[in-house]
Amino acid sequence: MSADTRSVSGSLVWPDERSDLLAFLPMIHFVWHDGVLTPEELDAFRGVVESQEWLDEDGRNILRSWLRPDDPPASASVADLRRRVREVWPADRDPPETLTGLGLELIRISGLTSGPWSLAGAPEALARVEERLGVIGHEAVRELLGIRSRVDPSLPAKAPVDVRPLTAHLNSTHRDVRARVMELLSTPELAPPAGLSRAEYREWVLGVVRMLAAEGLGSLGYPEEYGGRGDLGASIAAFETLAYGDLSVLVKFGVQFGLWGGSVLQLGTERHHRAYLEGIGTLDIPGCFAMTETGHGSNVRDLQTVARYEPDQQEFVIHTPCLEARKDWIGNAALHGRMATVFAQLEVGGTEHGVHAFVVPIRDESGGTLPGITITDRGAKVGLNGVDNGTIEFDRVRVPRESLLNRFGEVAPDGTYTSPITSPGRRFFTMLSTLVGGRVSIAAASVSTSKTALTIAVKYGDTRRQFGPANSPEVPLLEYTVHRLLLLPRLATTYGLHFAVQELIERYATQTTKSAYDARTLEVDAAGLKAYASIHAMRVIQSCREACGGQGYLAANRFGALRADVDVFTTFEGANAVLLQLVAKGLLSDYREEMGDLKLWGVVRYLADRAGTRVTEMNPIVTRSTDEAHLRDPEFHEAALRYREERLLGSLARRLKALIDDGATSFEAVNGTQDHMVKLAMAHVEHTILKSFRDGAAGAPDSETAEILSNLATLYAVETIDSDKSWYLESGYMDASKTRAIRGLVNQLCREIRSQAVWLVDGFGIPEGVLGAPAAT
Amino acid sequence: MSADTRSVSGSLVWPDERSDLLAFLPMIHFVWHDGVLTPEELDAFRGVVESQEWLDEDGRNILRSWLRPDDPPASASVADLRRRVREVWPADRDPPETLTGLGLELIRISGLTSGPWSLAGAPEALARVEERLGVIGHEAVRELLGIRSRVDPSLPAKAPVDVRPLTAHLNSTHRDVRARVMELLSTPELAPPAGLSRAEYREWVLGVVRMLAAEGLGSLGYPEEYGGRGDLGASIAAFETLAYGDLSVLVKFGVQFGLWGGSVLQLGTERHHRAYLEGIGTLDIPGCFAMTETGHGSNVRDLQTVARYEPDQQEFVIHTPCLEARKDWIGNAALHGRMATVFAQLEVGGTEHGVHAFVVPIRDESGGTLPGITITDRGAKVGLNGVDNGTIEFDRVRVPRESLLNRFGEVAPDGTYTSPITSPGRRFFTMLSTLVGGRVSIAAASVSTSKTALTIAVKYGDTRRQFGPANSPEVPLLEYTVHRLLLLPRLATTYGLHFAVQELIERYATQTTKSAYDARTLEVDAAGLKAYASIHAMRVIQSCREACGGQGYLAANRFGALRADVDVFTTFEGANAVLLQLVAKGLLSDYREEMGDLKLWGVVRYLADRAGTRVTEMNPIVTRSTDEAHLRDPEFHEAALRYREERLLGSLARRLKALIDDGATSFEAVNGTQDHMVKLAMAHVEHTILKSFRDGAAGAPDSETAEILSNLATLYAVETIDSDKSWYLESGYMDASKTRAIRGLVNQLCREIRSQAVWLVDGFGIPEGVLGAPAAT
Repeated sequence: MSADTRSVSGSLVWPDERSDLLAFLPMIHFVWHDGVLTPEELDAFRGVVESQEWLDEDGRNILRSWLRPDDPPASASVADLRRRVREVWPADRDPPETLTGLGLELIRISGLTSGPWSLAGAPEALARVEERLGVIGHEAVRELLGIRSRVDPSLPAKAPVDVRPLTAHLNSTHRDVRARVMELLSTPELAPPAGLSRAEYREWVLGVVRMLAAEGLGSLGYPEEYGGRGDLGASIAAFETLAYGDLSVLVKFGVQFGLWGGSVLQLGTERHHRAYLEGIGTLDIPGCFAMTETGHGSNVRDLQTVARYEPDQQEFVIHTPCLEARKDWIGNAALHGRMATVFAQLEVGGTEHGVHAFVVPIRDESGGTLPGITITDRGAKVGLNGVDNGTIEFDRVRVPRESLLNRFGEVAPDGTYTSPITSPGRRFFTMLSTLVGGRVSIAAASVSTSKTALTIAVKYGDTRRQFGPANSPEVPLLEYTVHRLLLLPRLATTYGLHFAVQELIERYATQTTKSAYDARTLEVDAAGLKAYASIHAMRVIQSCREACGGQGYLAANRFGALRADVDVFTTFEGANAVLLQLVAKGLLSDYREEMGDLKLWGVVRYLADRAGTRVTEMNPIVTRSTDEAHLRDPEFHEAALRYREERLLGSLARRLKALIDDGATSFEAVNGTQDHMVKLAMAHVEHTILKSFRDGAAGAPDSETAEILSNLATLYAVETIDSDKSWYLESGYMDASKTRAIRGLVNQLCREIRSQAVWLVDGFGIPEGVLGAPAAT
Repeated sequence: MSADTRSVSGSLVWPDERSDLLAFLPMIHFVWHDGVLTPEELDAFRGVVESQEWLDEDGRNILRSWLRPDDPPASASVADLRRRVREVWPADRDPPETLTGLGLELIRISGLTSGPWSLAGAPEALARVEERLGVIGHEAVRELLGIRSRVDPSLPAKAPVDVRPLTAHLNSTHRDVRARVMELLSTPELAPPAGLSRAEYREWVLGVVRMLAAEGLGSLGYPEEYGGRGDLGASIAAFETLAYGDLSVLVKFGVQFGLWGGSVLQLGTERHHRAYLEGIGTLDIPGCFAMTETGHGSNVRDLQTVARYEPDQQEFVIHTPCLEARKDWIGNAALHGRMATVFAQLEVGGTEHGVHAFVVPIRDESGGTLPGITITDRGAKVGLNGVDNGTIEFDRVRVPRESLLNRFGEVAPDGTYTSPITSPGRRFFTMLSTLVGGRVSIAAASVSTSKTALTIAVKYGDTRRQFGPANSPEVPLLEYTVHRLLLLPRLATTYGLHFAVQELIERYATQTTKSAYDARTLEVDAAGLKAYASIHAMRVIQSCREACGGQGYLAANRFGALRADVDVFTTFEGANAVLLQLVAKGLLSDYREEMGDLKLWGVVRYLADRAGTRVTEMNPIVTRSTDEAHLRDPEFHEAALRYREERLLGSLARRLKALIDDGATSFEAVNGTQDHMVKLAMAHVEHTILKSFRDGAAGAPDSETAEILSNLATLYAVETIDSDKSWYLESGYMDASKTRAIRGLVNQLCREIRSQAVWLVDGFGIPEGVLGAPAAT
């Protein structure tokens, strides 16, 4: 391409003396104005002009001068021509549908009533030229005339005016706690000052957690005699609400009151409660939860820290035998923790009794590390830098016999070991199961962070405009199909997760009254919802960041910190891949027990045998039905999600059985079907969410809200089916016409819900001062 | 559950005086050791024992004492029993396949040769008990005997020893530049010091870019007479290699030499080159690329900054008419830029000529902002905080007539506007198309960051162990199915992208010799690969972070900074959603021209008409074939990806035509099919990548490398098909048996490639000192 500029001499003027030529002008304007014709197309156009026999030579010469590829008209003369057309066009006249039609009208306006254009065939020949050019006539006419596009893409708002009933419905439990936390989050003291160093940030976080403790928020779940309310539900509600604010504060709060305090509460007995719980709740005894080791994250059973009992001194000796056994990533360890719940392999008189928990002092009152304890600072992390994670090593640290958190195992002074649970395996799982609150909490916090991100992105997408139809204002981003698909299905999932997690919290808060079976389903559902909600939160935050473009990249709009902080939710409190396998095993065993791998064979034989009979029958009419009422029918959604879960369970059982029959070990069998297990777990969680979502929608305070939530649940259901439609097609449950129709319905629902999107995010009830993102204002 | 502990009195001892009972012991050990039996199962077991008529009452009593659910044996006695079994079992004897078999062997070892066990039916009765318990016999036996699992899940390494030929193959162009940049990256001066404030970070980045300029790396693409090498390929190779290091350095480098320098080079003429290029290359003239406005990111055509020509003064007046027109996110603006290429609407004598670029001084030599210029600092961003982004406002800033970068449009002293391109639309697209180098560069940098992340995660997954078979060491994470699926397909895609982007760079570097058609396909492919590679990089970084668990959350392991920095690659140099539509429009118009929306109708009619005939025929045998040789056949992959692209193009055309026939505007038609356009664009890019991947594999320096790369390309192909199998099922191109077989092949290929994974990431050739992640060592 030449870098020279050159002069352009062509001109394109209004042919006052040859008004019959006006008919060509709209198309010629189109040729030069858009400049998208290839030389071949231009040639073809000129050929058609030349072949019009009714044109005299003079007219032809003028037209030729307008169509010289090597001498195009100056853009100023193209602009002049356009101005002239707009001047003569009567403002009140309906625009024609084609450029040819416009040309003929221009002739009439100029007063010419006879001449060649009245010849039969002449207008038709011109119309063929237009067709040859491939113009969208009605739009090109409007552009030339400067008429705004007929369609205003902004839909009328169809959301209710008042958002308060929706917010009240979503946050119907523990309103006092939620309101108080939200009030605190709105104060300047709880907004992290900009530009803090890591050391300053950690001190600021400590100060905030101290203030929250002083409010009594840390001990809500502890018994009343130790300063609490005995209300586990309230403690989760506080945590869930804190998750709208700074997430280092949230995690520090969770480490102190949930993990450290929770382990004393759940694994200890009255002597520990009396000694520690009140001080933990007031933050007078800051502490740690020292489970994870450098070499052992998810595999808690194989921890290597040792607690050897010495009957002579009636003491346990806590020891770190190797670097891999070092306690790692422990929150509150690097700076502030004074005590720690330490998980270690209990040994008494040469016999191993498996993992038990001990309360171990690690720092003195003045903050100095105690003898035998070595602590290092984990340093800079991807996020959550307000939390002081560290490593702890124990060099033969002695603690009294009473330090054993002895709810599930006790060592008598003489070294006799007793436990209410004989089997070490069952004891181990029972001990771990008491820590389910952490997973419930992370599931809830994940939903809160999704709400924050979506509130920002939906409000931005509702007002930020970009591009648009010709001759019209730019349109809000949420009018774009792809933008809606990026945000609205995720909004629906967030609502579904909200209701599912609220139900989970309710079951958790009332667990003491439930059967062992209920306790186990709680554990499986907590694992599943923690994994699903944290995966979802990361996707939401990333989508919202991208949906806000450059604005999303501004630190002030929070996506960066949210993503960096939430990221580890997928790893801590159980890595998601491990949790999802736990869900699958729970389903395989029908929640009967934590399943030992060696029992796999019996379970899978049982399931493989019944798989053929139990699964919902397929109905060929339903397989092919694309009727919209059917596709929107909650019964169809429920049946489709149930069918998938049951089929995946049955086929998993058959695959496991086949592998074991072929001589595979349980490890090989599980590993060989690991992706299947994850898929089954996700299918189960999605089914669970849909059921809760329907209940939540049905319980709405008014019919208008119920209808909107029901539509949103439908979006969740069809989007879930659409996302896994390859499975539905492979299984023969749906045919291609149906999956295509479902895809169409996803788009349709996004269009319908778009006008309610702002109302729906307002319903989350996050005050602007807590949201704090310029993009949302 | 009770919080009390209670004493346990049961005991389970070796029955020396009743060796006939030894046959039961392995199963009874199983019952109590794993503790996974339900009370019902225990009942059933006892029932079977009771029904064995050959047992005497004494023996029955002993067995009853071993099976009391309310009085289980102490775990110490279970452990004693296990020890005893292991003591008597001969080390050289093959373990039996069932617990029953083991029990019978124990009887024989004890010397008992006759007795009830010789009765017909007795062993079978016991075996039925075992079956009833649902035990994986062979594994339970090994666990009891303490024998390691038979299968060592670590595969033998099957990668070549020497990685250097692979590295040389990947980095075959511009070796001197790549080597020099890698050498520089390995020096301490190019590793960002920890804990810098934002201000310090920005100064550090400026210093590094100055050093790179002194090395001549900034001007590689400029003509030799201005200090460069005239080698665009070398300039991209330098950028691609710099992307292994600090990404703020990369982006600052790109802003100065690529955007600011590139705009002067590509949009200016000799007078501008003479005046500025040398100083830009040496960083003596730091500058900005001021295109984006607060209200206009992707929609460059509707920028609002105005440049009005005043013939009397022969000056342009650059003005920001409103806040939305403020130049925003401009790199180098907040602190260091002295000049800027400013994009503005050119107005001469009341006529608008569209967007043009002007060179505008913004700071004086001492760094003070010039009169009429207002600059604000964009402050903290999610990432890239070493780059000083800012906003620039112009208050009637006057620049001389010669400031217009006049390659595509010139204003004579008297105000006459001339251009070598008459049509404003075509002029605009031509101007933008010269900036394709930015997209090529970002595609290349995205691939480099993917390589960095994968090198860290694959090396970590190769050595980090977690869980494992019973009685065996924990196994490396990469032995797990889900872990492999998380990393290895992404490794394959990264290789494919590598080859595709290298081919793109080659075309870009030699573009001056190519036809206009080639230039347009280059533009479309650059848009597609930029979008695809940046989306891919974000997925890779996130997957790798999660694959490294807690280690991945350590700042030192780089994923946090990589993700935060790379994140904006999906937004800048054209938002991906916009770029992918550009790709789809390029395909619709068969690359004939940048397509004006008003021409849509002609194009879609043409395509909709031919769609029926052009598409590859489907072959019913191929549709159903699950033969492995066929599934691994490159011709099948090529046909499948080509078929998808062609079908998506044809169906898009038909949908657009139907919408326009129904009276939709081009905006409505495009918006109504936006997701379809994105899908088509992705399918096209994937097809492009596969073709390049096959070429790259075929060109390997030796047959072993070629074979491994060919297998990796197969993984890329089948993973791509598997990811979109719902489309293949819906279209009828494959049936369910085939898509299932393809899924199986993805898993199979991951198993095969696992042993070569470390070799493949080593092949990227990133020195450990540049990688700098503790997790990778």
